[in-house]
Amino acid sequence: MRSIELIQPKHIIFGAGYAQDWANIVLAGKKQRVLLLSTHPLWAVLEKSIGNAREKGLELLCLDYSWRAEPDTEIFENLHRQSKDFGPQAIVAIGGGSVLDVGKLLAALSSGTQKPSDVFGKNLLDSRDNLLICVPTTAGTGSEVSPNAILFDLRDGEKKGIISPWLIPDTALIDPEMTFSLPPKLTAETGMDALCHCIEAYTNKYAHPAVDLYALKGIEYVYKNLKTAVKEGNNIEARSAMALASMYGGLCLGPVNTSAVHALSYGLAGKYHFSHGLANAVLLPAVMLFNMEADLEKNARIALAMGLPDKGDLRATARSGIKAIQELSRDCGIPQSLSSLGVKREDLPQLADMAMNVKRLLNNNPRELEWKDALSIYQSIL
Amino acid sequence: MRSIELIQPKHIIFGAGYAQDWANIVLAGKKQRVLLLSTHPLWAVLEKSIGNAREKGLELLCLDYSWRAEPDTEIFENLHRQSKDFGPQAIVAIGGGSVLDVGKLLAALSSGTQKPSDVFGKNLLDSRDNLLICVPTTAGTGSEVSPNAILFDLRDGEKKGIISPWLIPDTALIDPEMTFSLPPKLTAETGMDALCHCIEAYTNKYAHPAVDLYALKGIEYVYKNLKTAVKEGNNIEARSAMALASMYGGLCLGPVNTSAVHALSYGLAGKYHFSHGLANAVLLPAVMLFNMEADLEKNARIALAMGLPDKGDLRATARSGIKAIQELSRDCGIPQSLSSLGVKREDLPQLADMAMNVKRLLNNNPRELEWKDALSIYQSIL
Repeated sequence: MRSIELIQPKHIIFGAGYAQDWANIVLAGKKQRVLLLSTHPLWAVLEKSIGNAREKGLELLCLDYSWRAEPDTEIFENLHRQSKDFGPQAIVAIGGGSVLDVGKLLAALSSGTQKPSDVFGKNLLDSRDNLLICVPTTAGTGSEVSPNAILFDLRDGEKKGIISPWLIPDTALIDPEMTFSLPPKLTAETGMDALCHCIEAYTNKYAHPAVDLYALKGIEYVYKNLKTAVKEGNNIEARSAMALASMYGGLCLGPVNTSAVHALSYGLAGKYHFSHGLANAVLLPAVMLFNMEADLEKNARIALAMGLPDKGDLRATARSGIKAIQELSRDCGIPQSLSSLGVKREDLPQLADMAMNVKRLLNNNPRELEWKDALSIYQSIL
Repeated sequence: MRSIELIQPKHIIFGAGYAQDWANIVLAGKKQRVLLLSTHPLWAVLEKSIGNAREKGLELLCLDYSWRAEPDTEIFENLHRQSKDFGPQAIVAIGGGSVLDVGKLLAALSSGTQKPSDVFGKNLLDSRDNLLICVPTTAGTGSEVSPNAILFDLRDGEKKGIISPWLIPDTALIDPEMTFSLPPKLTAETGMDALCHCIEAYTNKYAHPAVDLYALKGIEYVYKNLKTAVKEGNNIEARSAMALASMYGGLCLGPVNTSAVHALSYGLAGKYHFSHGLANAVLLPAVMLFNMEADLEKNARIALAMGLPDKGDLRATARSGIKAIQELSRDCGIPQSLSSLGVKREDLPQLADMAMNVKRLLNNNPRELEWKDALSIYQSIL
């Protein structure tokens, strides 16, 4: 068994109703000046806990992040200036993946002199000396437990990753009730993103048994619960399972990370502004079909983890899993073709070019994937 | 799904050869004054890394813990005085469960004014402000990732637990090669202890899916690897799987903990000086038989996790698992009767008295266990 480094929050609280507890965690950590980052529809929900925090003597700066797109360097720098002026001892981020990513970066850059442009890449952050608490309100990104954050760099129009153990929150406060109000479309897209994290880690060239454990459980939870979460937003059991699936997907990101699905999705997000989850969801079955032959046994085990019957033949079992994932995706309302989402055939070569630039993820893919393979994957789902 | 709090090291490094890396982790954490606690046969193994640490400018105090018995308050207080005089910024504990427990307590008590007698029980430690690194050299205790430490209180002759999130190490450095030299008897006893942690958490009254995940994987690893680890000490695959099993068992301890096996073992350790692992190993199958009816399905799933066939009947499958665990225990050289270990029939009522005192663990048991049940369990394995 090869070596592996598992870095994750030392404190994970999972439970319905716990989101409002953030102020108590700040107080237990003996911090006083708190930056609370959240997003528009949530402020009303947070009113009571904000009042509670102020009553208990916490000094609060509430910053709003309500952009629809993924965060870019300009949006970030504006928030960053306000954060530095305030000098928070604790940062609490409550929202979807973008809010959490921004909150994590604000925390890591709030002291010191580093700018975002200094830290794009892996392990370039110097340190973080404040308390970081993340409360996810979607179930997909896994950002609440991962060392990753994504910013769109306006200087060169590219989406870039910042990966550092300093971006891992101290506490992840995972409250499935916070996802009740997530609309079906976003529930579906983010849920499929969690599934991608798990499948791409499990079939990864750098997969490890200690991470496979999380990946298989996440795959099982998504397959058995996503449709219910999409159709019945207030179903606490389905929302709980999806919240855990997202966490498991996030726990896969640090030690193993994703591969070709995420690499091929960069262009769809960058050029066509697909949401992150949608881009991954559309690509997942096609990339799985491409990768399947690299490890039939693992692909068959994905189907078994989903609860599908063993067909007595690895390839047949593996295929049944991919087919079932495609059906799940369709049943959740995810469009199955790029053209129905406005992608033009003449753009596919450029999308393949963009995918080839995401080497750090393509390097993880279990099967070597060249430009022509990327092109033919896009063509297969056009 | 009910709520749960998962508290664990934010940093786990798993890999052959990594034990000697402790000094680099101290340096990465920007600490300078290091207390290194280890035990007699290991100092020779550590010579190189100690030299390396000194060369890199670390100021070292090496303390030896080489008692055979579980640590008691007198031994601890002697080490504690030396530790306080030194004022370590980092504590590195390298050894079996006793060494790690003592190291964890030294770390949490090295600043401040608390004494061990102030902190027996749950959540009584004030804080810890140094870096704590644990390197296990047995595979069983799970102390490297757990919030637990055990001391024998000489004032009243009782074994007592100290449980606090401050006792969870910052880094667990899990190097399976460090267990190569562990003799077969200790390998067997500590390995069965890991199995107990997993089974007692999985069948616990307070079991949770997020912990079941660890428990089932630990059960699988122990069942499939312990015999090999006992017979071939240098088998890296078996030692790696056992190291992970121990870690998974440890991850069960904080959020769920053990139940009747551990409660009934207290008297065997206290009165007859059984090792912790031996006491648990002898009791495990009998307590499983007693508990089985409380949840046949979970007990059957234990057998399936071990890789045994589904007998088509929950009770039969569950029984096959218990029988296989008993066979594993015997094959690993664990005596199967209390009388062969010197326990006298007339002492059984007193052992049952002692077990009844461990209410905090008996409360976790899936089936209510009264004094007469404890007595009859001891009688069944006399």
